[in-house]
Amino acid sequence: MNIAGRHYRTIFPEPGGHGICVIDQTRLPFAFEIRTLRSAEDAAVAIRTMIVRGAPLIGATAAYGLALALREDASDRGLEEAVRRLAATRPTAINLRWALDRAAALLRPLSPGARAEAALAEAGRIADEDVASCRAIGVHGARLIAEAGARKAGPVNVLTHCNAGWLATVDWGTALAPVYAAHDAGVPVHVFVDETRPRNQGAALTAFELNAHGVPHTVIADNAGGHLMQHGQVDLCLVGSDRTTATGDVCNKIGTYLKALAARDCGVPFYAALPFSTIDWTLADGIAGIPIEERDAREVTHLTGRTDEGALATIAVVSPGSPVANPAFDVTPARLVTGIITERGVAPATPEGLLGLYPERRAAA
Amino acid sequence: MNIAGRHYRTIFPEPGGHGICVIDQTRLPFAFEIRTLRSAEDAAVAIRTMIVRGAPLIGATAAYGLALALREDASDRGLEEAVRRLAATRPTAINLRWALDRAAALLRPLSPGARAEAALAEAGRIADEDVASCRAIGVHGARLIAEAGARKAGPVNVLTHCNAGWLATVDWGTALAPVYAAHDAGVPVHVFVDETRPRNQGAALTAFELNAHGVPHTVIADNAGGHLMQHGQVDLCLVGSDRTTATGDVCNKIGTYLKALAARDCGVPFYAALPFSTIDWTLADGIAGIPIEERDAREVTHLTGRTDEGALATIAVVSPGSPVANPAFDVTPARLVTGIITERGVAPATPEGLLGLYPERRAAA
Repeated sequence: MNIAGRHYRTIFPEPGGHGICVIDQTRLPFAFEIRTLRSAEDAAVAIRTMIVRGAPLIGATAAYGLALALREDASDRGLEEAVRRLAATRPTAINLRWALDRAAALLRPLSPGARAEAALAEAGRIADEDVASCRAIGVHGARLIAEAGARKAGPVNVLTHCNAGWLATVDWGTALAPVYAAHDAGVPVHVFVDETRPRNQGAALTAFELNAHGVPHTVIADNAGGHLMQHGQVDLCLVGSDRTTATGDVCNKIGTYLKALAARDCGVPFYAALPFSTIDWTLADGIAGIPIEERDAREVTHLTGRTDEGALATIAVVSPGSPVANPAFDVTPARLVTGIITERGVAPATPEGLLGLYPERRAAA
Repeated sequence: MNIAGRHYRTIFPEPGGHGICVIDQTRLPFAFEIRTLRSAEDAAVAIRTMIVRGAPLIGATAAYGLALALREDASDRGLEEAVRRLAATRPTAINLRWALDRAAALLRPLSPGARAEAALAEAGRIADEDVASCRAIGVHGARLIAEAGARKAGPVNVLTHCNAGWLATVDWGTALAPVYAAHDAGVPVHVFVDETRPRNQGAALTAFELNAHGVPHTVIADNAGGHLMQHGQVDLCLVGSDRTTATGDVCNKIGTYLKALAARDCGVPFYAALPFSTIDWTLADGIAGIPIEERDAREVTHLTGRTDEGALATIAVVSPGSPVANPAFDVTPARLVTGIITERGVAPATPEGLLGLYPERRAAA
């Protein structure tokens, strides 16, 4: 997608150099800065501190991180150690593990001397496939938006939570790919953007993306979505997923479950858009089976933003001395999910629905 | 309740003066400051800008504001004009209107010369009655907490939204009165405090109150409550109400509805605690009938807090140029409310339940 008229991916090899460039998402929306990762440790820090975030982008970053690691130590031990270290950066996202497993399986049979170059090529393929996958999600999901538009006058109002836009992927996004596709096709669409506390990815990133692309949108507090749905102001909820069970449970940014409950209560369709790489075919029960990352209390107690004078400042907003809990994800049970949108199409959030899209998994199951 | 060992009410006549003192709640939790209201305009500004907030405290402030107005102009016209002006400050809270109607009904028959003094005395009675009412809510609600405690090991985990503590009333609080009563009676209780965006009354005020009183608590993002309930970490939800229909619909701070949905989905009892003055006996359908105040976008786009250097600073946190919506309340339908706690006891959130507590309303209905 474009920033100030220039096309970017969120991650790309340094032009003419050996590093990997990423957009520093902790600086958005007030500053647009490119950082260069020069080591596996740089990549691990970028994932852990959320310089890069979003399940698909984390996967691509880990794959590039593995390539950087193998430049330092391409031995069997070096390979396994790098996989272990990168996999530990974020416990919830499944396609972090997927990308590392895929790259490692390719690299293990190779001689150490051939591994670094092969890893870089594989990371590039993972990134390219993510772009193609997101573009396909956009095409399938845009049909749902167009159908909703055909049933009403005025724009289709989509509510989204967190950032599952192009900044969360390599390009296009997951939940926002259908929005971009519909908008580009001339379907009037407007997005209610949950600010998404505690890290405000909605207010900072989704709003930034939509604004840059010219998609009409309105930022709201996370608390407001239920009220809007009660009053018929939302036609469709579209969210991403960090991990999806084989049964259709959707683990996504904390608070997603509350929006799914409101959607069900108000008769609003609720869709999760995700690439196949976030599906964990080994899990049947998301609530019992998915580890939920508990993040630093400071994400809740402090916010960074821009003062009226234009400087970035960090402030405390919680009463001093009060303890804080900060679970980063929650699980929306499949019974609340109207459908799952993947690069293969739209399916019910059921084991049969997902196997219908991925019949090759029937043998594995 | 106490601040640094000294007992305060949230509103009280200026000792030895003619003004009305209030705690400036826009300065909490980082500064504790008393402001003196010297005119009806001061009172209106205090209500509108949320120097005072919370349905019961708004009612008491309006009553005191009327007394200040009558000192300037006690004519019939002055009285009606002051009532109109004060009633317009916040459209949702019903007991703002209740307090003004009650005082005005007493004052209209009086000669203008007698009105100012009578208004001050009536405001004092409204404040005293609020204290007694909240104390009674505490006694009734504490029984529910004690019963929950008898069914489990460890502390009773209460989740609350916004601030319905003593800062929202004249003393004791509504939703938090049962917590204080239970805690003081030796029942182990722990409170999950929703930070309550966009104004953060939970993180700033509820956390401050509970900390000052020594009640164990944990601040969470508004998004986290559903996840906690899914995992059995909440025994009871307790919220306040800004307006309650005769059928038991509860209009409270935006986001309350989402927590009620999660409570229902997870089998967690959900109670609203409120004084009779928030009940709007004329309304049967809260979603259709209660006007929802739309507040300034800046409440969402900007936050004020303390820098590491100890200064108060205001920062923007939303991507520049993105539109914002800011509905301040939502309506939780009675079907999601386990019970209503008032100064008269606990009743089902039904017309019969409420009439059971207020049988004198049967004649009126």
